[in-house]
Amino acid sequence: MTEPTKYLLDESRLPKYWYNIAADLPVPLPPVLHPGTYQPVGPADLEPLFPLALIQQEMATEREIEIPTPVREIYRLWRPSPLYRARRLEQALGTPARIYYKYEGVSPAGSHKPNTAVAQAFYNKEAGVKRIATETGAGQWGSSLAFAGSLFDMEIQVFMVRVSYQQKPYRRALMETYGATCTASPSMETAAGRAILAKRPEHPGSLGIAISEAVEVAVQRSDTHYALGSVLNHVLLHQTVVGLEALAQLELADDYPDVIVGCTGGGSNFAGIACPFLGEQLRGGRPVRVIAIEPAACPSLTRGQYAYDFGDTAHLTPLTKMYTLGSSFTPPGFHAGGLRYHGMAPLVSHLKTLNLIEARAYHQLSCFEAGVQFARVEGILPAPEANHAIRGAIDEALRCKEEGISRCILFNLCGHGHFDMQAYMDYFAGKLTDQSYDESELAMALAGLPSVPAV
Amino acid sequence: MTEPTKYLLDESRLPKYWYNIAADLPVPLPPVLHPGTYQPVGPADLEPLFPLALIQQEMATEREIEIPTPVREIYRLWRPSPLYRARRLEQALGTPARIYYKYEGVSPAGSHKPNTAVAQAFYNKEAGVKRIATETGAGQWGSSLAFAGSLFDMEIQVFMVRVSYQQKPYRRALMETYGATCTASPSMETAAGRAILAKRPEHPGSLGIAISEAVEVAVQRSDTHYALGSVLNHVLLHQTVVGLEALAQLELADDYPDVIVGCTGGGSNFAGIACPFLGEQLRGGRPVRVIAIEPAACPSLTRGQYAYDFGDTAHLTPLTKMYTLGSSFTPPGFHAGGLRYHGMAPLVSHLKTLNLIEARAYHQLSCFEAGVQFARVEGILPAPEANHAIRGAIDEALRCKEEGISRCILFNLCGHGHFDMQAYMDYFAGKLTDQSYDESELAMALAGLPSVPAV
Repeated sequence: MTEPTKYLLDESRLPKYWYNIAADLPVPLPPVLHPGTYQPVGPADLEPLFPLALIQQEMATEREIEIPTPVREIYRLWRPSPLYRARRLEQALGTPARIYYKYEGVSPAGSHKPNTAVAQAFYNKEAGVKRIATETGAGQWGSSLAFAGSLFDMEIQVFMVRVSYQQKPYRRALMETYGATCTASPSMETAAGRAILAKRPEHPGSLGIAISEAVEVAVQRSDTHYALGSVLNHVLLHQTVVGLEALAQLELADDYPDVIVGCTGGGSNFAGIACPFLGEQLRGGRPVRVIAIEPAACPSLTRGQYAYDFGDTAHLTPLTKMYTLGSSFTPPGFHAGGLRYHGMAPLVSHLKTLNLIEARAYHQLSCFEAGVQFARVEGILPAPEANHAIRGAIDEALRCKEEGISRCILFNLCGHGHFDMQAYMDYFAGKLTDQSYDESELAMALAGLPSVPAV
Repeated sequence: MTEPTKYLLDESRLPKYWYNIAADLPVPLPPVLHPGTYQPVGPADLEPLFPLALIQQEMATEREIEIPTPVREIYRLWRPSPLYRARRLEQALGTPARIYYKYEGVSPAGSHKPNTAVAQAFYNKEAGVKRIATETGAGQWGSSLAFAGSLFDMEIQVFMVRVSYQQKPYRRALMETYGATCTASPSMETAAGRAILAKRPEHPGSLGIAISEAVEVAVQRSDTHYALGSVLNHVLLHQTVVGLEALAQLELADDYPDVIVGCTGGGSNFAGIACPFLGEQLRGGRPVRVIAIEPAACPSLTRGQYAYDFGDTAHLTPLTKMYTLGSSFTPPGFHAGGLRYHGMAPLVSHLKTLNLIEARAYHQLSCFEAGVQFARVEGILPAPEANHAIRGAIDEALRCKEEGISRCILFNLCGHGHFDMQAYMDYFAGKLTDQSYDESELAMALAGLPSVPAV
């Protein structure tokens, strides 16, 4: 028997707790501010949007937060997810590195997103909520919440960025198969949407606008709450199930990462795999280099400002301190829709200011090249978002080769690309370019950041 | 800890042998005949198409055939595949039945097809073959062989039925990502294709024509062999890894099937799950009811004749005895492309004549209904082909409810539907109908069966 290709955990080893890194941070997270008063928001401010349990998790400081049994029951449909040793990739690269990847594409919706979608649907159901409104860009999040809604028999309304709604009818079909309603955004259903359509009837939409619409519906309808697929603390918390499993699986492999790589859009898959290992380090355990890979066309961590900003375009959300390109920033239409967000999770931003993580920006062509190389040796066809993590891991492995050092590299393969084949077709047809954002637009968006008095 | 949702096997428990039911059959399979002489074909007749190792497997009578180590190494990228207990489906149906399903959609190409694609690519590579030509309808088989080719660094040429080539660009993109060449069939590359295009330049193609083209290329080019994704004995043999794993997993669950359900097009996923259990029965073990579900629009087992027939339209293949609708039969364009074949695997046909299996035909609407119900409770979005097996399993489970009997039902969920979303969109849009074949066309196709002198 040769060495294993993948490390599996029995369902009995599914984590019982999520890990909350807030408990181990040397400096606490800056508070979330009310945009009118600039005072820290309290639970009451968030109650129109979220159930109390999630608000408490958003502000929690205890290290372990129990995963409710019904959530674990559903996780067991696909979790624990496999940890792979990428032996064929190592061979193809001729690297002495030991490359591992956690594969989250085994979830029914095809990415890590159901880890939080199921939890959010559960807490809302418990609180008596009947409907959840949300937004989606590429569609990974929308289909994950649709999946979770079908299991808890809840109505899910997804505002899908219009250009994606038109370009990705199959993602929409997946949401509808799960029983959700999918609305092209901007829509006539909300004041935010109507105002935008009045000015520009053919507006292609944006994630910021879709968030505004979903939040508006949640605020106005007493039977409806809001859910977000990334950025917020409780979302990142739910994703730590990924890293917790990886810790146990690497123990089976008798290994420990020197380097962890993840792609970052809102930051949740990255934080999910990295935080449990960073927690080990913060509690005096073995240190680990953690690298966030972001798209060069939407580089919040590497080119944004660390400042208080809104999460949406219509400025309906509270202010959070984060690396941001400005809430009016519109990234070019590159093919990793899940990474096209103007801000970065406040928690990930905070880790960056504490020098606990590094950040690197890649253009899309080299990421697709890495994804195709990966598919041809490992078999799995990755999502365009995940290609960023693969590129980062390959570059680290090639550095190991140059330096003649065998490091252990762990990355998060956050989803498959079965619904993203148009991107691969465009890549092979030579239609993809390394788009850059408009520097003057970035300058303008940053100039428009709200001026918040020092707290 | 509640009862497990899925039963996993460690890689060390990956089967070391495929199971060959020929060793346990009470009556041997009828011989394959040469269409010119009506004499049984020998290895030499098949050598232009297949490597010797596969020809030997095609005719083998030993019970266990060793899975080569390099094939097992690749199987380990996704195997052993999970066996699920469909607890949520049981609940939704309110049935006392215990429903299990083996999930083959975890393979990189998304179905059971890589089980044989990898083996076939391996034996061809060993024999020094550089290129393999094949056909594909829905695209599951073509993408599986493309995947296998990428791992063994072989050139794969896929003749894809033209109408699918146009309707399913994403399947094509998947094959191209794995490095394969995909050609719309009928094509100008072969005499068979040119003859058809000369008569009808816009011919939509058929599986039978695409087989003719691939066989022609293999016969004419000394560096090229042919590969088939179903029907043949060696293909069904490779698929027994599915049933062998299921046997071990049900042992973990301390259960044994009363009923096994599979969908049948060419017959390979069905034989793969059923044969190891039928083998137990044939060797004096516990009997099991085995039900083949086929599409009512292409009902070879329930409406075909058991007769010698060609496997392709241009009559380049040998004659095999099977349930057939006639090689000129063209089924209507329903949405389970993998089940649109005029014949049934000779081995599956033989099992039917021996009364070892039953057959049932379903129309597509009730199958899609079952697939959507399944997705909403179990999460996985099934391929349209697999929906037939789900419909069969649900009907058996509802019978258990009526009769108040708790039977153990096992079915093969042979693939996911991520590349079949157009079918779901059409279903929700009310565009699907329960198409029937043309009775007079069937009569004509059956009248055209070759008349073979009794052997």
